[in-house]
Amino acid sequence: MQINVGYELNYAFPQPTPVILNLHVHHSRASDLARPDLMRTTPAVRTAAYRDGFGNWCTRLIAPPGAFRVTGDAIVNDSGAPDVVSASAIQHVVPELPEETLVFLLGSRYCETDRLSEIAWGLFSSAPFGWGRVQAICDFVHAHIQFGYQYASPTKTAWDVYNERRGVCRDFAHLAIALCRCMNIPARYCTGYLGDIGRPKDPSPMDFAGWFEAYLGGAWHTFDPRNHVPRIGRVLIARGRDAADVAIATTFGPNKLQSFRVWTDELGA
Amino acid sequence: MQINVGYELNYAFPQPTPVILNLHVHHSRASDLARPDLMRTTPAVRTAAYRDGFGNWCTRLIAPPGAFRVTGDAIVNDSGAPDVVSASAIQHVVPELPEETLVFLLGSRYCETDRLSEIAWGLFSSAPFGWGRVQAICDFVHAHIQFGYQYASPTKTAWDVYNERRGVCRDFAHLAIALCRCMNIPARYCTGYLGDIGRPKDPSPMDFAGWFEAYLGGAWHTFDPRNHVPRIGRVLIARGRDAADVAIATTFGPNKLQSFRVWTDELGA
Amino acid sequence: MQINVGYELNYAFPQPTPVILNLHVHHSRASDLARPDLMRTTPAVRTAAYRDGFGNWCTRLIAPPGAFRVTGDAIVNDSGAPDVVSASAIQHVVPELPEETLVFLLGSRYCETDRLSEIAWGLFSSAPFGWGRVQAICDFVHAHIQFGYQYASPTKTAWDVYNERRGVCRDFAHLAIALCRCMNIPARYCTGYLGDIGRPKDPSPMDFAGWFEAYLGGAWHTFDPRNHVPRIGRVLIARGRDAADVAIATTFGPNKLQSFRVWTDELGA
Amino acid sequence: MQINVGYELNYAFPQPTPVILNLHVHHSRASDLARPDLMRTTPAVRTAAYRDGFGNWCTRLIAPPGAFRVTGDAIVNDSGAPDVVSASAIQHVVPELPEETLVFLLGSRYCETDRLSEIAWGLFSSAPFGWGRVQAICDFVHAHIQFGYQYASPTKTAWDVYNERRGVCRDFAHLAIALCRCMNIPARYCTGYLGDIGRPKDPSPMDFAGWFEAYLGGAWHTFDPRNHVPRIGRVLIARGRDAADVAIATTFGPNKLQSFRVWTDELGA
Repeated sequence: MQINVGYELNYAFPQPTPVILNLHVHHSRASDLARPDLMRTTPAVRTAAYRDGFGNWCTRLIAPPGAFRVTGDAIVNDSGAPDVVSASAIQHVVPELPEETLVFLLGSRYCETDRLSEIAWGLFSSAPFGWGRVQAICDFVHAHIQFGYQYASPTKTAWDVYNERRGVCRDFAHLAIALCRCMNIPARYCTGYLGDIGRPKDPSPMDFAGWFEAYLGGAWHTFDPRNHVPRIGRVLIARGRDAADVAIATTFGPNKLQSFRVWTDELGA
Repeated sequence: MQINVGYELNYAFPQPTPVILNLHVHHSRASDLARPDLMRTTPAVRTAAYRDGFGNWCTRLIAPPGAFRVTGDAIVNDSGAPDVVSASAIQHVVPELPEETLVFLLGSRYCETDRLSEIAWGLFSSAPFGWGRVQAICDFVHAHIQFGYQYASPTKTAWDVYNERRGVCRDFAHLAIALCRCMNIPARYCTGYLGDIGRPKDPSPMDFAGWFEAYLGGAWHTFDPRNHVPRIGRVLIARGRDAADVAIATTFGPNKLQSFRVWTDELGA
Repeated sequence: MQINVGYELNYAFPQPTPVILNLHVHHSRASDLARPDLMRTTPAVRTAAYRDGFGNWCTRLIAPPGAFRVTGDAIVNDSGAPDVVSASAIQHVVPELPEETLVFLLGSRYCETDRLSEIAWGLFSSAPFGWGRVQAICDFVHAHIQFGYQYASPTKTAWDVYNERRGVCRDFAHLAIALCRCMNIPARYCTGYLGDIGRPKDPSPMDFAGWFEAYLGGAWHTFDPRNHVPRIGRVLIARGRDAADVAIATTFGPNKLQSFRVWTDELGA
Repeated sequence: MQINVGYELNYAFPQPTPVILNLHVHHSRASDLARPDLMRTTPAVRTAAYRDGFGNWCTRLIAPPGAFRVTGDAIVNDSGAPDVVSASAIQHVVPELPEETLVFLLGSRYCETDRLSEIAWGLFSSAPFGWGRVQAICDFVHAHIQFGYQYASPTKTAWDVYNERRGVCRDFAHLAIALCRCMNIPARYCTGYLGDIGRPKDPSPMDFAGWFEAYLGGAWHTFDPRNHVPRIGRVLIARGRDAADVAIATTFGPNKLQSFRVWTDELGA
């Protein structure tokens, strides 16, 4: 299967503004790119690439004053297989976790483990150890939160969404991540493309998707408490402790995002 | 000058509990250690050391049920010089910042840059660029917050302390860090020992201290908005995005910290 | 100046085989990358990135049975300046060396300091301290070894090349590193791209280059005893104790490298 | 059980000489020290402690010209239990190994995996996966090498001892480590104290012992191909890639080790 993914962001900047972008298909999928995943800007500016501490390839540029467009379009080869369910994946006790997973047990901007710890233990201490426990967390989050684009907020945290019970996909992910970490299961945030391949057409405008990965049985596994069914055609962009680390665009100055478009379509479908 | 630093933590654990500790003198001070900086536990358990993503040497252990003591004691050679003031250190524009500093511009658990950005620009956009701007932030934080041990809270964030105006040294540091980041100045949290060397004896029981570093003129510089004067004999333990990354102890299970002692004394003084 | 660097490796594997690759432009050059430095495989496999203990970004993957190609291509901005000569850089006495340099004084797989110590002191104890001593070592190595691609061997060490007097660039580097370490000068191995920019066209097929860095005057400096003149357009890939740490590919199973291509060209030249 | 461990090294130095020492009981055993593990020198010199890249606490000092003695003596609490046999510990396939273990698959000064790979696969590819394979390697090494103090040589490698078939405990360990790494099992070198507790008195003068650890089932396990039976009272000093990383003393200049004594005795026995 081939998937056409892409984005177009239209900004207005009052002054020259440094920007960091997380918009490339993740390096782990580089070999699936049927054509190079180039980023283009109008007006054209020089870009520089660097790898952040999580291994994501980020782009730095200086946006000139005025209208500024960033766009990219890629074709990604995909197995067409749905998210893998590994129901027998075990949970590692903390002393056996690899060192590189430990930072994904700590609190972070949008995942206040300190505030949610008692709640988590109250809800999940009798859930089965391992995959079943992460599944129980996803079941809870999916049932607890009402989805709605209008509930999106850049400052909304796991604690906030736990209390308000309304949010978007990133809020589902943040709450599930925080609850996993409270239960001593390393969890990290993922952002990327997720279309409605193999499903009824979704009439709402597309956005980037947020989901998460949990560390079980010696590997990281995909979970998506918003959609809550294995999905086809997930294309990763970046991973981090939470959405603060993998913002699509971090702008260092005032600006207006005037329009915004994302696409994820099966080619030939 | 030689400084004797050390700690004794007394816990009670209901069950075997994994713990991560950040209690060693920082590796950047290693050459100043007169002997290895060992951690001892009672009852004795085996410890494992690892380096986290910030370069801090952390210790992992499993605390047994019951009373558990962790203690350490080191002798550190010190220049005896106060914190350096580099008033002419310039501020880098974002495009010139080294990649490894960029993560210290992002929001983190206790430093909500998203919430504080407008406030920061309102307060500091006319402050001089560079060292003066960080100094202005420290002046503001020092005046804005009332210090009091009773105001300590593990969940208190920069946003909280900005609004409540009461806190401990880590809250001063978190607010200043968040404000620096809002102004596009990389800032990172530091924890360590800070006694009253060269000053009137402080009668309150000692605790670990929290301060921060800002990136100016191609280097990281020490700032301490709580004490707000250059101090002598600061001994770094660990650095991170905020206190969530460098908690003295991260415990993976219920526990009670029953008593707690920290010392920092000039030898022969 | 812009340099186009890249590689194509064609393997045959009899069975699924784990591979670790050191093929990305080094993170210290990240700001010079005009776009992400992606690695692509045919057939496509998922890759994982991690940072080794020296800070190099490595790639892990599982090569499927059969023909397997790995390729990458990057554009690197470069000053166009030749390797810097800092003839006045001093040599640190061992007690003043930073801790993190000390491991680069020890023996390693291809640099047997124990075997070469007496020889080194015999040859270089009267050479000037500092830059001049490393230069004397490079002069010696350059004169002592005959270059020839046919002399390459994966098991050849500094001791071997000292005695056989024939080798390739990595052997020149290993012998010079071992001799520097014997003289108490920290030295580390570098691998990367080095074309013939600004020089007569070299008709031989390109390979990755090996050179080394020595620690003098508080910094690491580039030395290249194979080429023995300052060169333009060196693009670092990885650093380690010797070539064992930064093998382009470490394969965990039998395989055949069927063909191999490396390029390093000035764009627009 | 309490074990009294200690050492006395008597050197003669013709000139002031920097020395790095690996002589402290390993930090993982710090809590088992019944009294502090101090190092004393005669004449007294200032020492500095630092942590190497493996986490070992090393000591730096400058030995003055003339006779120089280094001595230490500690009392270590010990469970008295023999080395643990975990015969069911699984072997991880390379893609599932934690990142921090991967460096222990590479070749190193005394463990030439490149030279021994074919031999290893010829000997052990039919041995059971996991603990049994490491056991088979230890069985082979124990039978293949004849022990004798007179066979000690500072330059002897795994390849050398495989061919000469004679060596001391460090050679047994190096050969077993190299063979484990060839079979894709991470292995690291250990040095420490090992007396004859619970066994017939060994009449030979004591030396420090060398053994190794292999990574199986998510943890590092002790193996000792020289002694080849579970032993009591092993006291770790340091770990590294091989003996080059954890030399008891690395001296940066000529010297004579005039006498040398090590002790490891059960107290009250």
